[in-house]
Amino acid sequence: MADKNIPYKIYLEENELPTSWYNVRADMKEKPAPLLNPATLKPMTVEDLAPVFCTELARQELDNDTREVPIPQEILDFYKMYRPSPLVRAYFLEKALDTPAKIYYKFEGNNTSGSHKLNSAIAQAYYAKKQGLKGVTTETGAGQWGTALSMACAFFGLDCKVYMVKVSYEQKPFRREVMRTYGASVTPSPSDTTDIGRKILAEHPGTGGSLGCAISEAVECAVKSNGDYRYVLGSVLSQVLLHQSVIGQEAKTACDKYGIKPDIIIGCAGGGSNLGGLIAPFMGEKLRGEADYRIIAVEPASCPSFTRGVYAYDFADTGMICPLAKMYTLGCDFIPSPNHAGGLRYHGMSPILSKLYDDKMIEAVSVEQTAVFEAAELFARTEGTLPAPESSHAIRAAIDEALKCKETGEEKTILFGLTGTGYFDMVAYEKFNNGEMSDYIPSDEELAKYREMLPKVD
Amino acid sequence: MADKNIPYKIYLEENELPTSWYNVRADMKEKPAPLLNPATLKPMTVEDLAPVFCTELARQELDNDTREVPIPQEILDFYKMYRPSPLVRAYFLEKALDTPAKIYYKFEGNNTSGSHKLNSAIAQAYYAKKQGLKGVTTETGAGQWGTALSMACAFFGLDCKVYMVKVSYEQKPFRREVMRTYGASVTPSPSDTTDIGRKILAEHPGTGGSLGCAISEAVECAVKSNGDYRYVLGSVLSQVLLHQSVIGQEAKTACDKYGIKPDIIIGCAGGGSNLGGLIAPFMGEKLRGEADYRIIAVEPASCPSFTRGVYAYDFADTGMICPLAKMYTLGCDFIPSPNHAGGLRYHGMSPILSKLYDDKMIEAVSVEQTAVFEAAELFARTEGTLPAPESSHAIRAAIDEALKCKETGEEKTILFGLTGTGYFDMVAYEKFNNGEMSDYIPSDEELAKYREMLPKVD
Repeated sequence: MADKNIPYKIYLEENELPTSWYNVRADMKEKPAPLLNPATLKPMTVEDLAPVFCTELARQELDNDTREVPIPQEILDFYKMYRPSPLVRAYFLEKALDTPAKIYYKFEGNNTSGSHKLNSAIAQAYYAKKQGLKGVTTETGAGQWGTALSMACAFFGLDCKVYMVKVSYEQKPFRREVMRTYGASVTPSPSDTTDIGRKILAEHPGTGGSLGCAISEAVECAVKSNGDYRYVLGSVLSQVLLHQSVIGQEAKTACDKYGIKPDIIIGCAGGGSNLGGLIAPFMGEKLRGEADYRIIAVEPASCPSFTRGVYAYDFADTGMICPLAKMYTLGCDFIPSPNHAGGLRYHGMSPILSKLYDDKMIEAVSVEQTAVFEAAELFARTEGTLPAPESSHAIRAAIDEALKCKETGEEKTILFGLTGTGYFDMVAYEKFNNGEMSDYIPSDEELAKYREMLPKVD
Repeated sequence: MADKNIPYKIYLEENELPTSWYNVRADMKEKPAPLLNPATLKPMTVEDLAPVFCTELARQELDNDTREVPIPQEILDFYKMYRPSPLVRAYFLEKALDTPAKIYYKFEGNNTSGSHKLNSAIAQAYYAKKQGLKGVTTETGAGQWGTALSMACAFFGLDCKVYMVKVSYEQKPFRREVMRTYGASVTPSPSDTTDIGRKILAEHPGTGGSLGCAISEAVECAVKSNGDYRYVLGSVLSQVLLHQSVIGQEAKTACDKYGIKPDIIIGCAGGGSNLGGLIAPFMGEKLRGEADYRIIAVEPASCPSFTRGVYAYDFADTGMICPLAKMYTLGCDFIPSPNHAGGLRYHGMSPILSKLYDDKMIEAVSVEQTAVFEAAELFARTEGTLPAPESSHAIRAAIDEALKCKETGEEKTILFGLTGTGYFDMVAYEKFNNGEMSDYIPSDEELAKYREMLPKVD
């Protein structure tokens, strides 16, 4: 059944792995809008960011020009533990769909964190260690980022303080225990370890917490550590997209090696770390006019930043303590419905991807949750791997494109990002298995309300 | 830090994968003792086994002579979805131990079932499909085998009925939902769907069930299906060791390719499916006098079939409805303490491995649970992957051998089997993280009691 020359799974050799991260901003004629200091509305400098972020990471955050950033040897060594990730030809899914399309996916779930998040976690932990810090602080919602960071910190012997949204802490005890096994301390948020936590607890005694509150606690914890800790973040930031470029570089090297030319590249988009990483080198070619690709961001209909948001300056966190970023946003007060793709429940979007979307270099679609789980089930049964709900948004869109090919007879080549596995998302699968999955689409009125609350920036 | 010529992870090319299963019995001068019909005490024939097992699998079970069994193309295609599994050099674990030993592990956990069980599940599902059956029945305790079989059945469109020990069904809802996502029906055992289940429920209304009861229900369900279903089993049987030989063949091909010569080969042993598969081709060389290897089976101190059991005919199931097998056993009435390595809580051992152990071709050690989890934690923090408790028995023994090398200065090469991941075992990890892990070693008196209950067979 297989193309004779193309293996089911393509694993690159160690000597074919990328040794630099690729910074797509260097190839953008118009750069993403700068982060602004919320107090002065002036562009943030490295010095402004340094109390919160590791200094080298702050530099990477603001660096729009360096095209190739060499990956330090210690990080390359760690990458070898779980990379290369395979580029897989979805022969069995194609057969089930009876489509002439050729479907490939880059699978990032073969590591204990269960997702691509480890690619940036290890980089951020490395720079923290190199700066001589005692540790790092962060927040986690669904738990993938917290797990990845715990693994990275264990590797470098760094302390890792994770503020976990209280409702997740209670509902996902297994995620919590994975982090603890790697030596992280996990605190349910809001907690009494910070001013902001104590304030929220006093005002809302029974609250289950929110990502915004957890971010605020993690930042406060870092800022008040006498310089021993810094805060790290798993998505949205440009530094994260830089680190995640290893996904796209491996995928492109594998495609080039076997003469595969994707017509369409698809990724799920929450904060943008996966999509930004997957498309990076392909987008580079597109920006330089060397090749053309249709690039599709897939977001949940319940949290449609690209498809129904606005391109405006907004706070990256609901606590409004982080810099202002210009991005596609629903407004930092927008609370997505408790759908199950936790990693896609973010009000905004990476400033890099937002600029590319505004420049019409990428498209976006939104999909509903029940259709996403139908795609996930078909994928699991045909391709074997149980996908994460987040990743399944990309599967849905890839299947839809493949079915269009079936109608038109076109033999398009589709590449999508399978960011991770769903082993810790079985509560959501159980709802689907029981026919109890629900969809939610916010009304125009609801979105307008939060849009009006956006900060006024010229 | 790495040997220049040996990658961190060795992935074979597709054209280097085995195309036959290797039947180690063909190289054994003295064969394992035959399965006996419990009613007549005569050796079982294919006809005796056919009402319970698929006919081709019954043939494989009794075939002591065919050395190479060609793997059908459909199974080879499925294997390509998750095989080859990597042979990994544990550079970071070696560094943490400061040992001159070279440690390799064959990692079978990179598939959604989370273990090596899929290698035999797909084979058994294939022969069921080929025989025109409607489906298969089985039991599952910890859930890895049930998950693997569900995946295999989904692939071939077979019905899959899983009897899951009730206490696991209730305590491991996520495992259950993975199976349901792949389309299996999962019934808590004992249930009112079988005579034996109803009988046990009437006698013990509040029981949490047992593996023995679940086996009995699954066999009854198959036997009373008017020939539509057969019963399948994930370990112990010689057919299962045959299918699992892909593990060892891949490992040996990778070793040969890079000039790696293991001095010691280590695997955990419950029913023997993993150890038997890992060592198969190495044992073949040893049996033929072409090479020598120290081979170590690792079992839990709480269920020490090899190290404290007897080599005798016993029932393979606690319901005493399966054939009698000659094996190292603690007695089929022995109930292991509720330790957490569910896959190692079996009173007996593969007849093939039992014969090899009796012939002093393999050694065995038993290890205590707290020490096992200490090894698991060290492995997770250094090598990244969170290991299954079962696999961690092998890690413990590998670490112990590597530490002996540190004392003696010997540069031994150690190969162990990392059978799977621990994502669904976080309750056990939580106990360990909280310092609440307990050890249990059965007393001589306890073991003697069950030994006296063994069936009397000349």
